[in-house]
Amino acid sequence: MVDREGGRLRVGLLGHGTVGAAFETLLAERAQRVAELTGRRPEIVGVLTRSSGDFEAILGASDLIVELIGGVEDALGYVRAALESGRDVVTANKQLLSRHGEELWQLAREQGRSIGFEAAVAGVVPAIRVLRDSLAGVRIERVHGIVNGTTNFILTEMTRTGSSYEVALAEAQRLGYAEADPSEDVGGADAAAKMAILARLAFDAAVHLSDVRFEGIEQITTDDIAYARDLGLALKLIGTAERIDGAISVRVHPAFLYPGHPLASVSGSFNAVTVEAPAITEITMSGPGAGGTQTASAVLADVISAAAGTQRPLPAAVPAPFVEDVTSAFYLHLRVIDRPGVLARIAQCLGEEGASIKSVVQRGLGDQAQLVMVIHPLPESRLRAAIAAICEIEAVQGPPRAIRVIEEEFE
Amino acid sequence: MVDREGGRLRVGLLGHGTVGAAFETLLAERAQRVAELTGRRPEIVGVLTRSSGDFEAILGASDLIVELIGGVEDALGYVRAALESGRDVVTANKQLLSRHGEELWQLAREQGRSIGFEAAVAGVVPAIRVLRDSLAGVRIERVHGIVNGTTNFILTEMTRTGSSYEVALAEAQRLGYAEADPSEDVGGADAAAKMAILARLAFDAAVHLSDVRFEGIEQITTDDIAYARDLGLALKLIGTAERIDGAISVRVHPAFLYPGHPLASVSGSFNAVTVEAPAITEITMSGPGAGGTQTASAVLADVISAAAGTQRPLPAAVPAPFVEDVTSAFYLHLRVIDRPGVLARIAQCLGEEGASIKSVVQRGLGDQAQLVMVIHPLPESRLRAAIAAICEIEAVQGPPRAIRVIEEEFE
Repeated sequence: MVDREGGRLRVGLLGHGTVGAAFETLLAERAQRVAELTGRRPEIVGVLTRSSGDFEAILGASDLIVELIGGVEDALGYVRAALESGRDVVTANKQLLSRHGEELWQLAREQGRSIGFEAAVAGVVPAIRVLRDSLAGVRIERVHGIVNGTTNFILTEMTRTGSSYEVALAEAQRLGYAEADPSEDVGGADAAAKMAILARLAFDAAVHLSDVRFEGIEQITTDDIAYARDLGLALKLIGTAERIDGAISVRVHPAFLYPGHPLASVSGSFNAVTVEAPAITEITMSGPGAGGTQTASAVLADVISAAAGTQRPLPAAVPAPFVEDVTSAFYLHLRVIDRPGVLARIAQCLGEEGASIKSVVQRGLGDQAQLVMVIHPLPESRLRAAIAAICEIEAVQGPPRAIRVIEEEFE
Repeated sequence: MVDREGGRLRVGLLGHGTVGAAFETLLAERAQRVAELTGRRPEIVGVLTRSSGDFEAILGASDLIVELIGGVEDALGYVRAALESGRDVVTANKQLLSRHGEELWQLAREQGRSIGFEAAVAGVVPAIRVLRDSLAGVRIERVHGIVNGTTNFILTEMTRTGSSYEVALAEAQRLGYAEADPSEDVGGADAAAKMAILARLAFDAAVHLSDVRFEGIEQITTDDIAYARDLGLALKLIGTAERIDGAISVRVHPAFLYPGHPLASVSGSFNAVTVEAPAITEITMSGPGAGGTQTASAVLADVISAAAGTQRPLPAAVPAPFVEDVTSAFYLHLRVIDRPGVLARIAQCLGEEGASIKSVVQRGLGDQAQLVMVIHPLPESRLRAAIAAICEIEAVQGPPRAIRVIEEEFE
């Protein structure tokens, strides 16, 4: 219960890792500024870590709980308790919100409290606030995001140096852009949690992490990167949330982008989010997706909104069906034995599933030939069927590699 | 005086041009959505145009005034009267705010009312809200913006087609990106007004339009564009607001950007704003800078904030001195008669003013020779002094052309 009259804003801080420590420092540096903006001077009245501190005591002494402790079950208990006792909450916990967001947002509505979560998605990139406030009145059709800095760094590095996935991952780990166990990032699960939250805001639909289909970048090869360069495309791990015929689709997968796409030039560990709607055409936001101070800045903005009481509650979610079979353009990479009739048979398999070939390039000869095709948009189920048929062709060596292609937006 | 209890939000609309008409349509389409978000259903209770409507009657019937009528003196009277009578105001009027903003923001503070002005700068690009809310707690060091779509379209067209300024301007006029009298846009005054507003928000400093130095793009030649391409640079009309040694500088001028700069890839009529601060590194926002529906969407977001009562007042401005002599890197283009010693004499003129040459390219021979130089950063006054000295060299034909170069941000 934020005391709007008093001069103090008593902040209970849960978690003291990289972001938590950076937030404590930033809050001390900017306390005077927060007081000027909100009439209330923030101070940290208690810090809970996994090994020290007493949650109940901190809660009792706080007006506002800042949850940066991570994990799901414990954090859920803390946030629930904070809201139930009338505190506003600020959290950076994407795993929590992508699993239990609806329960917590509903609880916040019932309690008349706010949950700030700008820092849960794309660090300092103001995607959450822009969706909640700037675009609140707009009917959004699609969100594309590069929302994982680790994978964007690795793909940028592979493109820049021609190095393999393994080498680029090692470099990311050396520079602190990837963790020792990088599986959450490189496998796409981290991006999936963030896209679930963005989709919730874009469409007012209840989107659970389990509703998001995702693939990672572990299978990307130097060949894919080289062909992308030849075709003038950029290879990125892209999150997509879109309305399709009254349903919605939320997914994460590697994709080739045409050079005109606003996300094509987002490189290194930066994150970016593009929002499309008829009324706005599109807007794109980009910036650092991680970093202690950067993420702490996003937390601070939410603290200011909570202190000023200017954060509207999230509207209740409406039910929405999810699309199972999404339409996409594809890049196909096949290793074939170059003999008469092979291309014709491959084209026949594609044609039978309604797949139309946009371009074909052959490289190499004899047993070493490679075919790279770009296929016009078709339902993914039909592409999978075509690939199954292509695998039956004797001259085709190994399963084709298929990567989605995101066409230019406004062609 | 927004009636927070009632179910209606009575909107008085001043102006019914492109944006005004688009806003009326959008508001009708999204009225239900606004009601869900704010508890209040908006309706337009009166429209004032230059030839019809009665302001006093509209004001009396309204909770909120949306000022899209443009101009300065009349609009000032309307906004002042609206605030004095306890109404919130939403305006897209950059000329008004860059001249009379301080008076109006102070009046709003005194009256406890809000002024929303997202649509005054960069259309639907959420630069105002991000500066006011997302970055409220951050000490901002610099803002760079492409905030005029007309000039960005013309420069993009010149780069894409190699056409002259005059031909590209005619194309912009044909497509509706430039007005019949384009001088406000191409001369830089429009961008200057927007940068005054962005600087006000970034630094909490009172910045009047007259504090902004600006140049336009009328003097840009196909040669400049061609050399930019040779050097791997992009030529843009860039607004800059920055802190320099306790003072601030706000200015608009053509500039070459290195390809890694986040604004280098912003093309066509799009606008973009980059904000830099130690705590956030940088964030960039881009999107359509104009268009009736796009600008109306920005107005709608402000209407929602006003209806919900979630717009904090702008803090009072603090005095700040303005920097007169800014340091910048430069591109210099000289036509010379190619004879022994000429380059040495030019280099001497530069050296005497402390200008250090980063690169030199000579093209052509004899009387047709051209020198293109990039000069390391130095105070502009010293570059002007060097140019004056260079003009005295007999072999130099006509005054050198000097265009600023914005170095990579984090080198």
